[in-house]
Amino acid sequence: MIASIRPAPNPAAVPEPDIALAEKLFAELRERTGTAAGITRASYGLGEQIAHDMVRREANRLGMTCETDAGCNLYATLRTGPDGAERRPAIFVGSHLDSVPLGGNFDGAAGVLAGLAVAAGYRRAGILPPQDLTVAAIRAEESTWFGASYIGSRAALGRLEGSELDGVLRAGDLIRLGAAIDAAGGDTAALRRREAFLDQRRVGVFIEPHIEQGPALVDEARPVGIVTGIRGSFRHRQARCLGVYAHSGATPRRSRRDAALAVARLMVALDDSWFRLAEAGHDLVVTFGQLATDAAEAAFSKIAGRVDFSLDVRSQSTETLTLMRAELARAVASIEREQGVRFELGEETSSQPALMDPEIIEAFAALAERDDVPTLVMPCGAGHDAAVFAQAGIPTGMLFIRNRNGSHNPREAMEMADFAAACRILAAFCLRELRPAP
Amino acid sequence: MIASIRPAPNPAAVPEPDIALAEKLFAELRERTGTAAGITRASYGLGEQIAHDMVRREANRLGMTCETDAGCNLYATLRTGPDGAERRPAIFVGSHLDSVPLGGNFDGAAGVLAGLAVAAGYRRAGILPPQDLTVAAIRAEESTWFGASYIGSRAALGRLEGSELDGVLRAGDLIRLGAAIDAAGGDTAALRRREAFLDQRRVGVFIEPHIEQGPALVDEARPVGIVTGIRGSFRHRQARCLGVYAHSGATPRRSRRDAALAVARLMVALDDSWFRLAEAGHDLVVTFGQLATDAAEAAFSKIAGRVDFSLDVRSQSTETLTLMRAELARAVASIEREQGVRFELGEETSSQPALMDPEIIEAFAALAERDDVPTLVMPCGAGHDAAVFAQAGIPTGMLFIRNRNGSHNPREAMEMADFAAACRILAAFCLRELRPAP
Repeated sequence: MIASIRPAPNPAAVPEPDIALAEKLFAELRERTGTAAGITRASYGLGEQIAHDMVRREANRLGMTCETDAGCNLYATLRTGPDGAERRPAIFVGSHLDSVPLGGNFDGAAGVLAGLAVAAGYRRAGILPPQDLTVAAIRAEESTWFGASYIGSRAALGRLEGSELDGVLRAGDLIRLGAAIDAAGGDTAALRRREAFLDQRRVGVFIEPHIEQGPALVDEARPVGIVTGIRGSFRHRQARCLGVYAHSGATPRRSRRDAALAVARLMVALDDSWFRLAEAGHDLVVTFGQLATDAAEAAFSKIAGRVDFSLDVRSQSTETLTLMRAELARAVASIEREQGVRFELGEETSSQPALMDPEIIEAFAALAERDDVPTLVMPCGAGHDAAVFAQAGIPTGMLFIRNRNGSHNPREAMEMADFAAACRILAAFCLRELRPAP
Repeated sequence: MIASIRPAPNPAAVPEPDIALAEKLFAELRERTGTAAGITRASYGLGEQIAHDMVRREANRLGMTCETDAGCNLYATLRTGPDGAERRPAIFVGSHLDSVPLGGNFDGAAGVLAGLAVAAGYRRAGILPPQDLTVAAIRAEESTWFGASYIGSRAALGRLEGSELDGVLRAGDLIRLGAAIDAAGGDTAALRRREAFLDQRRVGVFIEPHIEQGPALVDEARPVGIVTGIRGSFRHRQARCLGVYAHSGATPRRSRRDAALAVARLMVALDDSWFRLAEAGHDLVVTFGQLATDAAEAAFSKIAGRVDFSLDVRSQSTETLTLMRAELARAVASIEREQGVRFELGEETSSQPALMDPEIIEAFAALAERDDVPTLVMPCGAGHDAAVFAQAGIPTGMLFIRNRNGSHNPREAMEMADFAAACRILAAFCLRELRPAP
């Protein structure tokens, strides 16, 4: 925890971020890494490299100091003193530059360009923040490419497993993660030694601006969201329910072992649990996203003997996730007993919730209010690099920018006015002086 | 309605059916129309023709008179008087000889061979029943081949549509129904004129013995079932629910339009309706046999925007089917309103329930009791030729024979002792004299 964030000496003197620069860079990104079908910036691949090269070019132009780490993350720093001097912890602003295949232009990139816009605004106004401002362009956040999340931020914090470097292949070209990192100019030997390029002495706070991937800001008509925490999860990606196939017309109610009805009852039971816990104030989402009887064996005139399904439960609270695990176990046992079926939930994968720093949340709220920017204080349901920084003990915050049509698709629609509102909050925030914890 | 069925004059003199003959014919059928993978007797195809030729051969050997109609159904009659004489309505015993692809040996064939076993028993004992006994070998009952049900029995009763002869193709070889009937020696010109080879003057009663396709007789440890009625149905084979795809973690409860949860709620609502109606004495089965999110679009971390499903509702009572249609409409409307989704139920196909003749049910029950054969009086959930005869106003009955592992698969398992118990009831029944309605 940082002990406190001092208000900037002169609130009226916050320089306007360079939104025109960001707009130009969004357009260049779209042109150079996209087609009519969508944006593709593969992790450690061509599109991501183009984006990193662009950020480096602009940072150099702004007189920022560029460094890369063993995982090929790029850090562009607006320095408050000469390069050799001992440095205080910096404010990091950033996000990732990769995208899903045929995704949108804003998921990830908006966070990096927000940092550049703020730094360019300071440059234009000829002022320096009280401590270094580092724009971080993180690698390989999207799990779609290597089937592993937060590769870049984990590499930066010395938290990447050696087994991932050797064992994880990129979708499509099947290149190993380690080989892809080395090809991009990284240093897998250093990653294997778990060397952390970033730590709490270097990163005073980490701020990730990101488009919202859900509809809350659109629904509530607020341009900016202030994230309270990143939801953790538990998931059963390949669960199934096994019943007994039987004639739909000839099998009486008491003889049925209907896998489809059993899964339906499980879905309704967990939805009811969700409703009850939400009413009691718990943060929670529960999703059965995939669901299928066997294409070869099922028929309209047969009771289903098997249903495959997926379950995704997320909450900001570890305690709530534990409660929902118990609700799941209870529902499964009772439905198995009542319906004569068997559930095989398969492997559980999970992630820990990560809370955002309360002082940062408070500072964002105060700055937004001063700027008359309506905000929503809200949980973040998707995973982000910010979670890795928070779990490493670094005070972390996230700003959401209103966005239509969700993310991971070419219809992402962030308006520049909303982006500018978030950048103005950031520009004010980065003028505050971090006071180290005593 | 027949006015009544007189008891046979001397119950003790009921001749034992020729079970050995039936057993030999089952073995021959299995050998000539099956492989290790299952039995295949295609409608108007090779396997079905082999079975018809076998029945004709045995009927000739037993001195029965063989006729075929324009739909190639075979009628083998044990005559009570000379061929030219005016005939009273006969007792018809039979079923179909086709099977599904890679099906079992007993579905259909058991009913025809039961009739032959009874006739052979009479022959062996040297007695004749009070009226003609006709063993009916019906064509093309399984809808799997031509996508239409009860082709043979509808042809016999003048109820086949001309459009079906031209428009319906056989799965696999895509031969048109009319062409297949003509190739088998039928007369599609007569079928187009809707000439009925069978009617109430000719058929006094129609009895269809058939293996049970559900588990009720096995569960209740009864060798024989007495069918009260054949369930009618309404079906939505290609229904769907449309919601909105969205991020599972980032979309709050109130913004969700979750097609998967909506379908689950519909399934549970109709299952609850079923339970309530069953408690109130309604005959009913409700099955959602197929269920799938879109393979390309759905993901474990996405709320489902679309679920395809099938619904099959069956009852012996038209009134109950009407009640369930209303329950479905109510549930759909309320779930659409609450979950923000849209259901497209698609085309409804339906069939009418067919009640079995109460006097026949009563006669079967009395004869079974006299033989100490435990029976279950029960509905029939699957469709059968018997339904077509009942709907044509012919007094109709069905006897179920206990069978393990359902039907339409090579694991059908009827025991000959159970078959014999049903044949003995039949042998006694066919000695009763039908009295025409006044």
